[in-house]
This record gives sequence, structure tokens and C-alpha cells, in this order.
Amino acid sequence: MKRATLLLLISGMFLATTTGLAAPGMKKVLTSVKDNIRVGEWTHRGTDKATGAAWSIAKKTLHGGKQEGVDLIEFFTGKLKIVVVPTRGMSVFEVQAGGIRLGWNSPVKEIVHPSHINLQSRGGLGWLEGFNEWMVRCGLESAGHPGTDEFINNVGDEASMELTLHGKVGNIPASEVEIIVDEKPPHRIRIRGRVDERMFYGPKLELWTEISAVPGSTEFRIEDQLTNHGDAEQEFQIIYHANYGPPILEKGAKLVAPVKQLVPFNEHAAKSLKQYATYQAPTPGYVEQVYCIFPYADKKGRTTIMLHNATGDKAVTMSWPLKQLPFLTQWKNTLTTKDGYVTGLEPGTGFPYNRRVERKYGRVPKLTAGQSRSFAIDFAILSGSTEVQKGAASIAAIQAGRKTDIQKKPFQTD
Amino acid sequence: MKRATLLLLISGMFLATTTGLAAPGMKKVLTSVKDNIRVGEWTHRGTDKATGAAWSIAKKTLHGGKQEGVDLIEFFTGKLKIVVVPTRGMSVFEVQAGGIRLGWNSPVKEIVHPSHINLQSRGGLGWLEGFNEWMVRCGLESAGHPGTDEFINNVGDEASMELTLHGKVGNIPASEVEIIVDEKPPHRIRIRGRVDERMFYGPKLELWTEISAVPGSTEFRIEDQLTNHGDAEQEFQIIYHANYGPPILEKGAKLVAPVKQLVPFNEHAAKSLKQYATYQAPTPGYVEQVYCIFPYADKKGRTTIMLHNATGDKAVTMSWPLKQLPFLTQWKNTLTTKDGYVTGLEPGTGFPYNRRVERKYGRVPKLTAGQSRSFAIDFAILSGSTEVQKGAASIAAIQAGRKTDIQKKPFQTD
Amino acid sequence: MKRATLLLLISGMFLATTTGLAAPGMKKVLTSVKDNIRVGEWTHRGTDKATGAAWSIAKKTLHGGKQEGVDLIEFFTGKLKIVVVPTRGMSVFEVQAGGIRLGWNSPVKEIVHPSHINLQSRGGLGWLEGFNEWMVRCGLESAGHPGTDEFINNVGDEASMELTLHGKVGNIPASEVEIIVDEKPPHRIRIRGRVDERMFYGPKLELWTEISAVPGSTEFRIEDQLTNHGDAEQEFQIIYHANYGPPILEKGAKLVAPVKQLVPFNEHAAKSLKQYATYQAPTPGYVEQVYCIFPYADKKGRTTIMLHNATGDKAVTMSWPLKQLPFLTQWKNTLTTKDGYVTGLEPGTGFPYNRRVERKYGRVPKLTAGQSRSFAIDFAILSGSTEVQKGAASIAAIQAGRKTDIQKKPFQTD
Repeated sequence: MKRATLLLLISGMFLATTTGLAAPGMKKVLTSVKDNIRVGEWTHRGTDKATGAAWSIAKKTLHGGKQEGVDLIEFFTGKLKIVVVPTRGMSVFEVQAGGIRLGWNSPVKEIVHPSHINLQSRGGLGWLEGFNEWMVRCGLESAGHPGTDEFINNVGDEASMELTLHGKVGNIPASEVEIIVDEKPPHRIRIRGRVDERMFYGPKLELWTEISAVPGSTEFRIEDQLTNHGDAEQEFQIIYHANYGPPILEKGAKLVAPVKQLVPFNEHAAKSLKQYATYQAPTPGYVEQVYCIFPYADKKGRTTIMLHNATGDKAVTMSWPLKQLPFLTQWKNTLTTKDGYVTGLEPGTGFPYNRRVERKYGRVPKLTAGQSRSFAIDFAILSGSTEVQKGAASIAAIQAGRKTDIQKKPFQTD
Repeated sequence: MKRATLLLLISGMFLATTTGLAAPGMKKVLTSVKDNIRVGEWTHRGTDKATGAAWSIAKKTLHGGKQEGVDLIEFFTGKLKIVVVPTRGMSVFEVQAGGIRLGWNSPVKEIVHPSHINLQSRGGLGWLEGFNEWMVRCGLESAGHPGTDEFINNVGDEASMELTLHGKVGNIPASEVEIIVDEKPPHRIRIRGRVDERMFYGPKLELWTEISAVPGSTEFRIEDQLTNHGDAEQEFQIIYHANYGPPILEKGAKLVAPVKQLVPFNEHAAKSLKQYATYQAPTPGYVEQVYCIFPYADKKGRTTIMLHNATGDKAVTMSWPLKQLPFLTQWKNTLTTKDGYVTGLEPGTGFPYNRRVERKYGRVPKLTAGQSRSFAIDFAILSGSTEVQKGAASIAAIQAGRKTDIQKKPFQTD
Repeated sequence: MKRATLLLLISGMFLATTTGLAAPGMKKVLTSVKDNIRVGEWTHRGTDKATGAAWSIAKKTLHGGKQEGVDLIEFFTGKLKIVVVPTRGMSVFEVQAGGIRLGWNSPVKEIVHPSHINLQSRGGLGWLEGFNEWMVRCGLESAGHPGTDEFINNVGDEASMELTLHGKVGNIPASEVEIIVDEKPPHRIRIRGRVDERMFYGPKLELWTEISAVPGSTEFRIEDQLTNHGDAEQEFQIIYHANYGPPILEKGAKLVAPVKQLVPFNEHAAKSLKQYATYQAPTPGYVEQVYCIFPYADKKGRTTIMLHNATGDKAVTMSWPLKQLPFLTQWKNTLTTKDGYVTGLEPGTGFPYNRRVERKYGRVPKLTAGQSRSFAIDFAILSGSTEVQKGAASIAAIQAGRKTDIQKKPFQTD
């Protein structure tokens, strides 16, 4: 009779693959700087008692090229598949429900590890080497276009620095990642991650991100909390850069929004002002058109926008408290399929001008020491013309007949 | 009676070490973004039926310092040892046959992971922190000297960017890596890798690289295919930066080439014009001398060059279709042994001036949407004076008595 | 009857966790580029025969956020806990003995992997995104403030480059790491690591770092050797940036040093000249005050400085041969607790001005080809007022009544 002694010479946390069943009240830590954890391959399955929806969460690591070592979380709610990228600031790569995909086909084909991104390259456009997510947050110290801005340096002097496109947060790996299943019905499942933008003589900002859904639903929610952990007042910027390609984006697709005021981002966008709400087919040589939108809110302070396809039977809605994210940027980039056919609908604390412009216009908020601000956006995928018409009606109700002011000239930026 | 159940809690692809025998027709994928594969330690052995040559391919991962995590492929053809670095753009670290080594002793001692390279450092010379390969490709969006050039930015405006020395491709990890053994005789063995230089609002270039040899031979071939996967026309540059140190490079070593025209790269090189073909001993304080060569081709359009040692019994030849790579750069850098005693023989689609200069002279080719171009260079290691003399004779046959035009002045660059 | 054959399909070096007992004369390699080694989790325990001190060394790897993959060595001497970070240039994260900690609470909370650091960001202040160590070396090609300096580029021309704050060496992973237990009494235990700052057309500097202690002691030593492996003369700079927060730093804490001359770093520091030796409580909006100190040495050429707390019962002393590190920088940064309450006491081969200023003042030494220089600093943690008074007395003995020259004006820098 023999005994096989199995010496597991393995750093337990890093490589273990576990498969388990999930129960309400579950909390699973996948990554933790605090406890020195990085779970490797991992799968969890559950069945929601109320809806009967079978859901699952799987964690995996990507290999090859510039995506070597990137962590991915695939969350299947029973109706939605949500793919989150902890290594890239908790960005959401895509969301799928039935035949509808939220996301786009970027010419960037890999989910690029931040260690391969140099934000300063190409005159501050290095961010574009990793840009392919459905939803990537821009921020936190700055969120807009590259260019020179001022800051206080290590000897207390005013100095200038070159800001880089859309800031750092999309290329910072999450420090803490956890899955929570609400103990109470409707047993919402939450993928949470903390992304720190901290430095000495700089911001001490921590962003707890969360994406969550109730099993069996085609709605989901992003709910973030940003905290200034420094002892001094701190400027910040955040833009939720949500990007859509086919099947919702197509020739004749439309943005429906309760618009109070709309201002073209630049002279180029001003030329196509009248067509701002409608999208073209993929167009060689198309140059991005950007519109700055001040939306209306309903009586509870919420606004809702919708992007729907040409025939109006596929749509996505985004809904949020306007006070949290008062500004909406519409980024039209209907380039060819291979070059990037996409539109961004981007609620933010400002528009994506360089921070020095945003500051001038009073759109760079501050957090006092210890202060937090929350940002929540609800998303729904609408399928069929009845649902889409209902969505449009609810947006019309927010507009409530109030007038829309379309400005012909862009903001003066300097 | 007991049963030992062995739970292998290991991410299979990443860590498995397999050893196997190879057969004609074999295809083995070592890295794949598409299939999320990264093979760890791996060895394969074969015996070529025709030549009886015992060959092998081993994959390993490097540890320590800046080379932590770098993948290496060691290919022993029976006669040649070829070391390929997938993590560094499929560069070839060295080739050895008997006592002859193709490669050089760079002061950079590690095979540096791209995540430790900042191409923009030192005024755009960061590439030099990883430079130690026998053959590194320069390119693909730009391949030459650092400095300002124009490009079209994300808002469609002409903007300027600082190009960095020799471009990005040498510091991009391969996305797909595979080994192929030809099914048909002579059962050529091919190490293939795809390196993507892709970004949003930038190039969508994919380079399939290949280095191959027939078992038992001292000849080998690099054969690449570059494709523009964007929908717009795309400029590109590629230079095959092949670098030689001892034993071929030594005092009295010579470049033999069928030269139609030779132009010194700058005023400094112009001073030593007469000695361009001959090499000095390691020389403290030596400043690089660079010559731009327009070679002759034979009737089939091929050119051949040779570098041989002083006594003419050790040599390497490089042979390629001139139309593919019309320009040859000779980089003489006979610094001291510790500082880098080396010469580069560099066939390219242009010379290594900054792209704005190359464009001015019509040496920046373009690929239309979907278009591909191929580049193939055959290398042979020659041992013994008979072989070397034969090599020289074949180059003389290409020259065929045609005159050589030696220009005394460098190109006007600005 | 069955036999369980255990195939260990594991790359032995990388993941093995070993636990063992250490004996005098032991040498253990933890990381080696030369032998392609990276030991994973590893623990070693020993008992010192003379003192009976039970000591241990453990190696681990950090996970999560920006610290994924960072190697750490925890060395417990029986009295001291010393934490070394091979991945960050052999920096020392902290040292603890009883209730006294050498180190500080930086707003940077993770031990950041160099692949997440872009030294050029923020106008050359990217180094600050990883700065949280007790002791980080600044250097080796440059060690001071960012700004433009000249260098010789790849074509032999004078070119200018933007130096980055405190240089590269703190963000270069060690190439060789080893533990040595002296065979001879007192069986000093040494953690040694080699950090290479090498590039083509640039420095070929190798720094062998060592931190060591005798089991059971509260003293320890840093002893480094820097060698120029190039064939040409090479400038270098090194500053030992040792940083202290609570409990030694507090309101009323004092620097005790044998000062020959003291010069304020800039006009701002000049304003608080009289209080240079005394520290404030954490102060919102405090702007760093820096003083350049030329210390006195004793007859053997050694100098000693001390930082003690307000009541004078907790202190650290630093003692070194003045010829090795002739200049001492005192960096006062008594910002708030969350923003970084810290003072740096920084022996160096110069002051932290930009290298072009240091060169002007003759404070940029050179190494000839093959030449080495050594740097050794002894540290002691003093506990109780008797020990602290003894320390102060030994410093007074070095001063030996010699006068202190306090300059009112900073150096002229340009």
C-alpha cells in the first residue's frame, strides 16, 4: 500500500484555479494589494432563486503580444455578458445581450497591458495605443486633450507639464478587486475594483469602481466613488468614455437626448451642426466631430440619453443624476470599419478640452481633504421597436417641450 | 489500496514543459493572442531524413534584471544555432555556426523586456537601452533618427511628434509565434511570428516575420510580410539592422559589395570616405561613420554583399531582391570592445535619416489599404578561404565591371 | 498496488518555495541573469551561535495594482527587520527595531514595479510616482533635479537631453541577488544585489549594493561598489536618499551634525535658515526646505550625523567616510501626514541640483575605465536617552569646537 504525498510547490494565490458555487452574501477577493492576493483562473456559478437565472463569473489571464499578463473578468448575468479589465483601470471591454453588443471594433486588437503604454508618446496621444474598450474612464487628475498646463512642482514653484490625452486612470491596474453578491433580494451582483491615482507631490485620489447587475436583467449599472485621500484640496476630472459601434451604430443611427444647449467642439464640428444627432455610414477620411451638450434633467434631477440604430429596434440608454456629471460629450467618429467606426457618448464633470481650458470655464471641480463624490450611470439594452419607442418617449418627457439652444460657434478656448 | 488523484492546479499553457519529437508537416503554436496561448518551457527534437541532421527547437523564459519574463527560442539546425526573441519583435539575438558568430558584444548585457524601455528617453534614444541583437528590425511607422516630424492627429490637424530612434517594432512582443516544419523536402524549419504595430488614429501594420533554415545547412533566410490592415494609405519604413562584431569584424575586415553609388551620411563620414570598405581595430573615442549605398543587382534583380575578416577565411553574405530593399546602410562603429565594436549592414526601404528627410528624398513608401509587401534576405556563413573567395567572385559578377560613383558630399538634409 | 508518478511540470526555479536552515558560509542566489534564476517564495532560518539570535530571511513576490510581480526580501536579524526591494534597484523599504521604524508614510502606498513608472512624466518628475522607500539610491548617470543637460549623442555630436528627477537606478531591477552568511565570526549576513545602468552610447555602470547586519545587533551597514565597465571615462552621481518619518520625525525632532558649512538650496530655504536643525509638526502647505551641508570628519575621516525625536529617546545615526560621500543634503518636507511628513538625510557625491549645476561646481566625479569606487554607511537605531546622548556626544567630538559657517545666500546656479 502506497501513499502519494503531493507537494504543491506552488504559490497558492497566483495559480490556483477554483470553481465554486455562489450564494447570496458572498464576497470573493480576486486581487488585493492589502492581502497580497492575485487569484488566477477562477470560476463561480450561481442560480438566482427569484428569476431562475443561471449566472457566472470567471477570471482569466490573457497571453501573447502586448496583452501578456492582463487580467479579465467575464460576468454572465444570465442575460448580459460583461467583460471587465482590472489591469486597465477596471475598464469594461464589452457588454453583450442577445444580438446586441455594446463596444466597438478598434484597430487596437489586443487588451494592452499598461506597461506597454507610454502616455507621452506621439505628442501625448500614447493612450490611443490601448484604446478599444466599450467604456473607459478618463481622469483623474486630468481627463481631456493633451497640451501644456500648470501645476505646482516639488519645490513649490509653478511649473508646466504636458498633460496626456484622457489622463492616467485607464492605464492603472486595480489594487483591490472583489465580487459581491448582495445578501438581500434582488441579489445584485457587483464587480468592484479600487484604482489609485496617487503620487508624491501630486494627487492622492482613489476611485472605487463598481459595475453591477441583477441576475436575469438586461440593465446594469456603473457606480463609482472618488475620494481625495490627501490633506489638501485637489482638482479632478472624470469622463465616462462609453463607445459604440455596430450593430447599434450604423448609417441612420441616432442620438436621442434632452438637449438644453449644444456647442460644437471646434470649427470643424460646427460645419456639420445640423446633422449632429444622425450618424453616417463608415466614411473614409472622416474627421471626428465633437459636440458639447448641456442636457436637461427631469424633476428628480436625472437625465437619460439613447443611441438607437437606423430602424429603431436596437438601442442603448444611459441615465444618470445630472448633478454628478453635468456635461455630455458626443464624439462622432464614423471612420471606416477597419480604422474605427465608433461614437462616444461621454458624461463627465467637464468636456474633453485641455484642463487649462476647462479650468477657465469653471469645469474643473475640486475635492477637499477627505471628500468623496459619487457617479452612477444606469445602462439598459433595448431590443425591439416597442422598447426603443418607450425609451424615446421617456427622453421626450425629460425635454418636456423645453427649447434647445444650438450654438453655431465653438467655445473660445484661449 | 489507494488512488492518488493528481490535481494539476496549473494554468496549462503557461507553465507546461513538454518535450517531443518533430515530424515533417508539424505546426506548433508557442504564443497566440487569438487562442490565448503562451507555452512555457518546451523542447522539440527532430532528425532530418535527407541529411541525417539532428535539429532541435527549445523555448525558454529569461529571469532576472530587465530580462525577467522575456521569451527566447533557441533553434539548432544541426549546423547553426539561431536565437530568436519573440518578446522583442522577433529580433534575432545571434546565430552561431562552428567558430563563427553573427552578433556582437553590446554593452547592453541583458535581453531587455520592452516594458523597461522608454523610447522617448535621452532625446528619443531610449531604443539604445535594449540594443544588442544581431538583427533587429527598425520600423514600421518610422525607422530612422529621432527628431520632429509631422503627422495627422486625432482632430484631423497637422501636428508634430518627436520620432524616436529606429521606431517601435523592435520593442513590440510578438502576438503569434509558431514553428512550422515543411511537409515537403527539404523540410525547411520556420520560426514565424506576427508583430503588430497598431493604434487608433495611427498605423494598422502587421508584420509576419520568419526565420528559417534547412536542417544541416549553414544558410538561413529571413522572410517577412508587411500588411496594411487599415482602410487608408499608410507610410512605412523598414530597415534590417544586422550587426556584426568579432570574429568576422576585426582590424582589416572588409565589406565587399556591388556599389553603384555611395554617399557619406554626414560630414564626419565624408572625411573617411576612401576607407569606407575597410575596418579598423577597436578604437577609443571612435565616432560612428555611416555610408549610404545604392547597390547594383544581377539580371534577376538580386544583390549580394559580404563582410569578411582580415585573412579572408570567415565571412557572412547577405543576398536579397534589390527591389524589395533598394538601400543599404553601412554603419561603422569600431569603438572599443567594451563600448561596442560593431558594424551594421542594413538593407532597407530607405536610409536612417529622420523620416522627414527620407520623405523629401522619396524614400518613404506607402501601402494602400490591404496591401502587402515582402522582404526576404538570405544569409550564409562562409568558412575557409575557398568559400570566401567564391563569395567575393559572385559579388564581382554582380558589379560586372560597372563603375562605382563615390559622392564626396553628404545629402542635403534640410 | 499503484505507483503515483508525480510529474512536476514546473519551471523549477521560478515557483519553488523552499524552507531551510542556514549555516555560516552559506551563499544563496535568489536572482541571477547569469544563471537564469528567479527564486520564488523562499525562507531561511538560522541561529547565531555567539549571540543566540534567531534570524531569518524570506523572499516573496507582491501582487495587485502596480506592485504585481515586485520581489521583496524580508531580513529579520533577531533585532532588526530590514525589507529590501530587488525589483526597485535594491532600495530598502523600511527598517524596524522594537518600536522604532526607519521609513515614512508616503502617499504612494504600493511598492511600484518600474514598468509602471515613466520617469519623464510630469516634466521629469515621474520618479515621484514610486517614491516611498526609507532609502533609495539616486543616480547613477545623474542624481539630481530634472532639467536640460548636455551629452554626446550617437553621431558624436553635443546634444541636449532632459534629465529626470534622481536618475534611473532606483527603478532598475537587480540582475543578481544573493544572500551571504560570513563564514567567520561575527557571521555577518549580507543581502547583495547588482544593479546595472548600462546602455549603448551611454553609461556602463554596475553597482553592487549590499545591506548587512550581525545577528542580534541594532546596527546595520550599506556598502556599495560602483564600477565603470566602459572603456571611456564616465561621469557619475550617487545620493543616498534616506527618508525618515515618525516616530523619530516629529515636532521638535532635531538633526545633529558636525557642520563645517551650510548653504540654503534656494531662496525659500534661506528664509528658514536659523531653524534648519529643528523640525516642525506636520504642516499643511509646507514647501520643502533643503540645505546643503559640508560636514566635518574625525581624524580617521569619518563623519556621523543623527536625527532624534523631540524628547531625545529615539534616534538614528548615519556614519560614513567623508571622502566617499563629501556632501550631505538635508531635505525637510514636514507636510501633513497624508501628503508626506518626511525628512531626507542624503549623503552624496554631490547635491541634488541638476547635473549641469553640479558639474559647474566640480561635484560630478568620474570613473576611468574599469575604475571602482566604494560607498559605505553605517546605521544605528538608538533607543533611550542614554544612547541618544552618547550619540550626540560622539558628533560633538567630531565637531571638536570647530566653527560652523552658515551661508545666507544659496549657490548661484546659472
